[in-house]
Amino acid sequence: MTSNALRIGVLGSGNGTNCEAIVAACARAEVPGRVVVVVSDRADAGILARARQHDIETRVIGPSRFRTRLERELEEQLVGVLREADVQLVALAGYMRVVKTPMLRAFAGRIMNIHPSLLPAFPGLRAWEQALAHGARVTGCTVHFVDETLDGGPIILQQPVPIFPGDSPESLHRRIQVVEHELYSRAIRLFAEDKLRIEGRRVRILD
Amino acid sequence: MTSNALRIGVLGSGNGTNCEAIVAACARAEVPGRVVVVVSDRADAGILARARQHDIETRVIGPSRFRTRLERELEEQLVGVLREADVQLVALAGYMRVVKTPMLRAFAGRIMNIHPSLLPAFPGLRAWEQALAHGARVTGCTVHFVDETLDGGPIILQQPVPIFPGDSPESLHRRIQVVEHELYSRAIRLFAEDKLRIEGRRVRILD
Repeated sequence: MTSNALRIGVLGSGNGTNCEAIVAACARAEVPGRVVVVVSDRADAGILARARQHDIETRVIGPSRFRTRLERELEEQLVGVLREADVQLVALAGYMRVVKTPMLRAFAGRIMNIHPSLLPAFPGLRAWEQALAHGARVTGCTVHFVDETLDGGPIILQQPVPIFPGDSPESLHRRIQVVEHELYSRAIRLFAEDKLRIEGRRVRILD
Repeated sequence: MTSNALRIGVLGSGNGTNCEAIVAACARAEVPGRVVVVVSDRADAGILARARQHDIETRVIGPSRFRTRLERELEEQLVGVLREADVQLVALAGYMRVVKTPMLRAFAGRIMNIHPSLLPAFPGLRAWEQALAHGARVTGCTVHFVDETLDGGPIILQQPVPIFPGDSPESLHRRIQVVEHELYSRAIRLFAEDKLRIEGRRVRILD
């Protein structure tokens, strides 16, 4: 671990498989970075248990009286926690809250999310089920910077995933997750290497 | 050309490269069918010149006082032309008019379109430019059955096309077109072999 490793904060509400993949990619030095704090809005989230196994600091901020976001005071606490840990990149990994002004202002251009579809197709919840119900033949996943839109921020990387005739929501979701784990690490590596430039709604990747 | 070859009517407003690809696929017997009539809303459309080179019957129905559809009487004429030619499948190939009730009723489940994106992303005009402007990393093309929605009918086949950093609208469009030509013929072959079943908004492909 070099002293100039990117300091990553991960936010998640679920099982934390993407967080695990990021931690593993850092351990293998595929990402020149380190997950320094994992924050969840749910005290029982699997992502916290995984983080503790890796001796990563964990925090719970929530629950909230809102379902899809934190109230402002809680989000300001979240900013405080991430700043205290000197976080340089915030990686959302199955975080079920929309981030609002306090976070967007404190970490402008420094919040990433991964979404299980080829955005702008199928934004929102359970995108793999949406794709199946729509009868799509191809879906995929997207890593993007987070802005004030729902799943609409500038796209960093995308990768297609085919939908097979016999796919169930579960089989498709699993296949997307395999791609997610690799794609998120690639995007974070590009960020750590300072190779991403946000230009309007496009992201330029430097050579 | 077998006597039970699928009788295909092609509608187009432009240069007709997709029509050419369908004609070629029929000639190579990759599609068990035959383009029996090509109809355009524009007398000067390249698609008509191409059709005449292949000794295919051509018709012009239009212009119209509307920009994006035909008036009802013209669309009824169109139905008449296609019925007269005993058309079993209508393939839209760069046809710049939305088809309405007369066509949808006369050829229910028998009208296909090809669209230069992975629908539901980027419906409407110049989808490759939309994808570039959106900063997408992946786009593609879609063959779908036509219904009363704009580019929203049941999806038959889709194929992704990567967007490269240096892509111009032209370079991307060319790359999508190469995929279109192959994909459209595959979809028409499946139709000719009676292997497509529309089930709600999904299309099942029989083995």
